[in-house]
Amino acid sequence: MLNVTIIGASGYSGAELASLIAKHPNFSLAGCFVSEQSLDKGKLLSDLYPEHASLLDTLLLPLNEQAFADIEAKADFVCLCTDHKVSVELAPKFLATGKKVFDLSGGFRLKNPQDYDSFYGFTHQSPTWLAQAEYGLAEWNAKGISQAQLVAVAGCYPTAALNGLKPLKQADLLADDTIIVNAVSGVTGAGRKANIGTQFCEVSLAPYGLFNHRHTPEISQYLGHSVLFTPHLGNFARGILETIYVKLKPGVSEHQVNEAFQVLADEPLIRLKGNKQMPSIKGVAKQPYVDIGWQVQGEQLIVVVAIDNLLKGAAGQALQCMNIAALLPAELGLKGVS
Amino acid sequence: MLNVTIIGASGYSGAELASLIAKHPNFSLAGCFVSEQSLDKGKLLSDLYPEHASLLDTLLLPLNEQAFADIEAKADFVCLCTDHKVSVELAPKFLATGKKVFDLSGGFRLKNPQDYDSFYGFTHQSPTWLAQAEYGLAEWNAKGISQAQLVAVAGCYPTAALNGLKPLKQADLLADDTIIVNAVSGVTGAGRKANIGTQFCEVSLAPYGLFNHRHTPEISQYLGHSVLFTPHLGNFARGILETIYVKLKPGVSEHQVNEAFQVLADEPLIRLKGNKQMPSIKGVAKQPYVDIGWQVQGEQLIVVVAIDNLLKGAAGQALQCMNIAALLPAELGLKGVS
Amino acid sequence: MLNVTIIGASGYSGAELASLIAKHPNFSLAGCFVSEQSLDKGKLLSDLYPEHASLLDTLLLPLNEQAFADIEAKADFVCLCTDHKVSVELAPKFLATGKKVFDLSGGFRLKNPQDYDSFYGFTHQSPTWLAQAEYGLAEWNAKGISQAQLVAVAGCYPTAALNGLKPLKQADLLADDTIIVNAVSGVTGAGRKANIGTQFCEVSLAPYGLFNHRHTPEISQYLGHSVLFTPHLGNFARGILETIYVKLKPGVSEHQVNEAFQVLADEPLIRLKGNKQMPSIKGVAKQPYVDIGWQVQGEQLIVVVAIDNLLKGAAGQALQCMNIAALLPAELGLKGVS
Amino acid sequence: MLNVTIIGASGYSGAELASLIAKHPNFSLAGCFVSEQSLDKGKLLSDLYPEHASLLDTLLLPLNEQAFADIEAKADFVCLCTDHKVSVELAPKFLATGKKVFDLSGGFRLKNPQDYDSFYGFTHQSPTWLAQAEYGLAEWNAKGISQAQLVAVAGCYPTAALNGLKPLKQADLLADDTIIVNAVSGVTGAGRKANIGTQFCEVSLAPYGLFNHRHTPEISQYLGHSVLFTPHLGNFARGILETIYVKLKPGVSEHQVNEAFQVLADEPLIRLKGNKQMPSIKGVAKQPYVDIGWQVQGEQLIVVVAIDNLLKGAAGQALQCMNIAALLPAELGLKGVS
Repeated sequence: MLNVTIIGASGYSGAELASLIAKHPNFSLAGCFVSEQSLDKGKLLSDLYPEHASLLDTLLLPLNEQAFADIEAKADFVCLCTDHKVSVELAPKFLATGKKVFDLSGGFRLKNPQDYDSFYGFTHQSPTWLAQAEYGLAEWNAKGISQAQLVAVAGCYPTAALNGLKPLKQADLLADDTIIVNAVSGVTGAGRKANIGTQFCEVSLAPYGLFNHRHTPEISQYLGHSVLFTPHLGNFARGILETIYVKLKPGVSEHQVNEAFQVLADEPLIRLKGNKQMPSIKGVAKQPYVDIGWQVQGEQLIVVVAIDNLLKGAAGQALQCMNIAALLPAELGLKGVS
Repeated sequence: MLNVTIIGASGYSGAELASLIAKHPNFSLAGCFVSEQSLDKGKLLSDLYPEHASLLDTLLLPLNEQAFADIEAKADFVCLCTDHKVSVELAPKFLATGKKVFDLSGGFRLKNPQDYDSFYGFTHQSPTWLAQAEYGLAEWNAKGISQAQLVAVAGCYPTAALNGLKPLKQADLLADDTIIVNAVSGVTGAGRKANIGTQFCEVSLAPYGLFNHRHTPEISQYLGHSVLFTPHLGNFARGILETIYVKLKPGVSEHQVNEAFQVLADEPLIRLKGNKQMPSIKGVAKQPYVDIGWQVQGEQLIVVVAIDNLLKGAAGQALQCMNIAALLPAELGLKGVS
Repeated sequence: MLNVTIIGASGYSGAELASLIAKHPNFSLAGCFVSEQSLDKGKLLSDLYPEHASLLDTLLLPLNEQAFADIEAKADFVCLCTDHKVSVELAPKFLATGKKVFDLSGGFRLKNPQDYDSFYGFTHQSPTWLAQAEYGLAEWNAKGISQAQLVAVAGCYPTAALNGLKPLKQADLLADDTIIVNAVSGVTGAGRKANIGTQFCEVSLAPYGLFNHRHTPEISQYLGHSVLFTPHLGNFARGILETIYVKLKPGVSEHQVNEAFQVLADEPLIRLKGNKQMPSIKGVAKQPYVDIGWQVQGEQLIVVVAIDNLLKGAAGQALQCMNIAALLPAELGLKGVS
Repeated sequence: MLNVTIIGASGYSGAELASLIAKHPNFSLAGCFVSEQSLDKGKLLSDLYPEHASLLDTLLLPLNEQAFADIEAKADFVCLCTDHKVSVELAPKFLATGKKVFDLSGGFRLKNPQDYDSFYGFTHQSPTWLAQAEYGLAEWNAKGISQAQLVAVAGCYPTAALNGLKPLKQADLLADDTIIVNAVSGVTGAGRKANIGTQFCEVSLAPYGLFNHRHTPEISQYLGHSVLFTPHLGNFARGILETIYVKLKPGVSEHQVNEAFQVLADEPLIRLKGNKQMPSIKGVAKQPYVDIGWQVQGEQLIVVVAIDNLLKGAAGQALQCMNIAALLPAELGLKGVS
C-alpha cells in the first residue's frame, strides 16, 4: 500500500480524490489537510460531503508544522488540491523532502514562466521546478509521468481539448487555421466557496473569460497549434462538453480522420464514439472516461468531447497519474468504480 | 400616480417589487435604496438582474441622510425589503414622517413582543408600532390594511398555509389535533447573498429548522390553531408547495369542506382546484396566485397549497396591500401581468 | 380590437402566444384550435398549462368544417403554431379567404423550394405562396411584414443569429470565412410531446443535427453569408444562447464593430450589451428581448446572443409581427409585460 | 461466480442492477432481456445508457423460447425488473425450473391477495407463490431472504419508511395515531418511458396519488401500524426524501428514541444521523445507503429518511438480497462502489 496525502481536501477536487483513494486497492489515505485558517479545520470530510459519510469520516487537519513532519514521515505521494499560488509555494517544500508531488492546480503547467505573468497575474517563484515538472495528461505522457518527481496534472478544459485534438495533430491533418474550442463546464468547476455568481439562483448558461482564459495557453502549448478557447458556465454540477471546430488540410478524408483517432482505441479510459452517438454531459457525469465523437463535412471537422471535470478533469486523472507512477494499470480504481 | 420607494431593492423581493412597480399603471418608482455599506451601491438594478435591463435601469442609491430627506419629500409609500432587524429600526423613522410603510420582513408580524425574543433572538424595540401594525394577508384583512399606517406584509410560508386553512377554521371544521404543514420552498426564499449552503452544487431537497422556524408562531397566531410546521429547501428557484394534513371534526363531510373554501371563490388571486388537479410549483412560478387543492378521506383532509414565494409570498402581496391602501383593485398590476 | 385565431394552441408556442394575446390591449383571442385527432380536444388550455389558469380557461376546439367557417367569419389574423407540413397545407386555405396568416413553422421561410426537399424532406406544395411570403424577422423587415398577407415568422435559432450578424453584414465588416454559430437551446424548443429524448432523466447538454440542421439555410439565406451552425440541447426549459465566431475583414476596428451595432440601438426589444456583460439564459428567459454582447481581438470577433426561444424565438416575435401589421408599436404587449 | 439474469434490463432499475452486477466480484451477468415487442431489442444497453459504455456493451435480447431455455441452462438467480403484471406471469415459470427469483416489482409484496384487486386493479393469479414469497427488506428479513425461492424486493417508498419506523415499532414507542409519511421521489421513480407528465418541461414538485398509492398497504402491512402516505414527484432524477410525523406514546423520552434506532447501528448500509444533520437528496443520490435523521419535541417525533430510489430503493437492495442469499456480506459490491 502506498500512502497518499491530500492537501486542500475540503474542495470539490480534493474530496473527490479522497473518495477515490478510499476505494483504491493499492493506495491508502494518509491525511486530509486544509489550511490553518480554514473554517473546515477539525470537521469531518463527511460533514461537508454527506454523500461520503461512513466511507470518508476523515478529520480535516490543519496544515501546520506538525502536519509537515507527519507528511514527511508517512506520505509516499502528496497531492495538492490547492489554488495555484498555494501550490507554487507548497510544492517545493514537499519536493525537497523527496516526495512525489501531484499538483492539480495550474501552478506548474505552463512551460514559459512569462505566461504566469500574463495569464495568472503573478511572477512564478519556482522556475526550476517549473522546468522539471511533467505534464499530467495521462494518455499522452505516461513515460514522463512515471519518471517525474513533480506532475502538473492537466487542467480540466485542456484534458478534453487535447484528447480530442492531439490525434489529429499527430497524424498531421490540421490546417493552419485557428481551432475554435467552445466549452461548457458544470459549476463544480468554479470550486467550493460562497460566491454570488455560483449561487443556485444566479447560475445559468453564459460565456466568461472571452479571449483570455488561462487554459488557452495550456491547450496551445501542448497541442502545438493556435486555438481560440471560449468557456461557458452551464447549469449543471459536473461535466465539461467541448464542441471543437477544426479545419482539415486540403484533401484529408473522413477515413484519415477515423484512422487518426485509432491511436486512442486501446486506452481504457477513452471511449471513441465516431459519428454514431455524440458525447453528452449525462454520458460522462461521475464517469472516469473521455468521450470523443466527430463528424466530417468536406474540410470541416467537428470534434465533440465530454469529460467529468472532477474525474478525468481533476481527481480521476490525478489518480491515473499516480497509478502510472506506481506502475499499476492506469485505470485501476477508476474504471468500473463509479 | 403614487410614488413608491423601495429600501433594500437589491435583494430578490426588493427587485421583484421594483419590477412590479415599474409595470404598474398607478404607481411610480421613486427611488431604489440599499444600505450605505452595500457593495451594490451605485450599480444599476439591471446590473444585478440582467433580465430587468431596459425596464429597470435604475440606480441603487445609498440610504444616507440625503436619501431620508428625498424620501420624505417624494414618497407616498415606503416599502421595506430589508432584514427584520433593519426594518424594526427603519420603520419608525418613516412612520414618524407620516409615510405609509409596507414592511416585507418579519419585524412587525408577531403580536406578542416576547415571541421576538424566542423566535427571532432579539428584543423588539418598537412595541407601540408592533401593536399598531396590521397583518398584510390581503384576502383576509383588507379593511385593516386599508386603514393602517404600517402593514406587516405576511410571510411566504404563512401566506400559503393561512389561505389554505383559514376557510376551514372560519367554518369551524377543524378538530383540535395539531395541523401538520409540510412545506418546500425554492432557493430565492433564502435571499440573495453568497452562502455556501445555497451554492448551486450544494442545494438539494432537505428539511431545516425542525420545530422552531419563525413562521410557526406566525401561522398559529393568525390561524388560532396549533400547527407543526416543517420547512424544506427544494432545488428550484421560485415557489412554495405546502402539503397540509388536517383532522376534521367528527362528521364533517366533503361537501362541507368544499363549501368552506367557497369563501375564497371570488378572490381574483386565488385559484381553487378542489381535488381535480393538485397544485404544483410549475403552476405558480412567476404567477401572482395562490393555488389550493384538497382531498378528503373520512376525517382526514389533505390541503395542498402553492404560491410563488417572491410574488404572493412577498412582492406580489405587498403590491396587493398597496393596491388596497390606494383603493385600487387588489389584483391591479398582478393578474395578467407576469 | 382585432380577433386573433390560433391553430395548434396546445403546443408550447401556441400556448405562449395565447397568453400574450390574452394580455394584449388591442387583440382579442378568437378561438384556440387543435387538430381533430388531438387528445387535448375539449380540454381547457389551463388543464395543460396550470400556470395560465384563470387567464386562459379557454376551450381547445377541434379544427373541423365548423371551425373553418367560424374562423372565416370572425378572425382578423390567423396564427399557425403547427408543424411545417400542416402549415403548408393549412395556410393556403386561410389565405384564400383573405385572412392575414402568421406561420410560426418553417413551412414558408426558405425562398428556394428545392431546399425543402433537401432540408425538410418533402416537396413544397405551395410554391406561389412561398414566393409571396415575407420573412417575419421583425427588426429587419417591418415594411414587408406590414404589407404581406403571409408572414413566415423567423425561426428561433435564426432570430438570434441574424440579429447578431446582420448589423455586421450591413456594415460590410465580415471576412469571407464561414461564420461558426454554436447554439444551445432549452427543451421547450423540442415541442410539447411525449418523447424519450426529452424526458426529464434523459436530457443533458449535447449537440445534435451536426452540419444539416434546417436552420442552417435559413440563416445563410437571410444573412447572405456562409455559416456553420451547430445546435445543442441544454438542460433548461426556455432560452437560446448562441456564441458566434466571426472573422472580420482586415483592418476593421473595434470601433467600427461597435458602430455597426448602433443600427439596432433604438429597437425597443433589442438590448445591446457590448463587452460589459455577456448575455445569459437567465437574462432572457420569459423576456421578449434579444440580448447582444460582443468582444473583438484583432480580426477575431465573438458575438454572443440570447433570446427566449418561445418569446422572441416564436410567439413574441409573431406578436411583434402582428403589431407591425396592425400599425401598433412593435413592442406592445411584450415590453414590460412578462 | 454466480450467474445473474436480468429480465427488463432496459428500464432504470434493470440497467442499474446490470451495472452493479458488472462490477460485483462474485456475480456474473448472464443475459439482459427485454420483451419480444420492445423496440430496444437488439440494441446494446450502452446505446440507451451512454454512461455505461465500455462497462455494459451488453446486447438486449428478446425474451423468447430460446431465451427461456438459455436462462434455465445458465442462470443461478433471475431478477425481474418488470412491471408487476409481467412479474406475476413470469415468476412462476422461472420458479418452476428451480431458479431463485428476485422480483423488483410489487407483484408479490402484499400478503393479502385481495389487496391486489383494491390497489393494483387486477386479480392475483399466483396466490400460492404470493404466500411463499419473502419480503426483501434486507436489514429486517435476512433469514427469510436467505431461505426463500422467491424474494419480493421491497418498494422504494416502503424501504425508506420502514427503515425509519420499524425501530420505533419494535421498541414499542408508537402511539396509536396514524403516522404521516410525506414523501418526494425523483423522476427515475416513474420509469423510463415516453410520457408527457415526466417530460423535462413538465416536471415540477407536486403531489400525486393522494390516499390511494399502492405503497400505503405495503408500508402498513410490514410496519403493523396505520399510515397516511402522500407521495410527490420532485424535480430531480434520483432519490427519495421522506419526512415522517410520528406521535410517541406518552412519556417516551428522546433517549428512548435514540436507543431504539441503535438496532440499526451496525448495519453497513444504514447511516444514523440523529438530529445533527438532516438527510438530503444530495447525500444519498448514487449511494447505496439509508440515511436516517430524527428530532423529538414532547410527544412529537419527526423522522427524516433519504435513499436513492434506484439503489437502496430497487437495484441496490435487490443486490443486497442476492448477497444474503449467496451467503456473502450484504454490502458487497455496494458499499464503497458508487
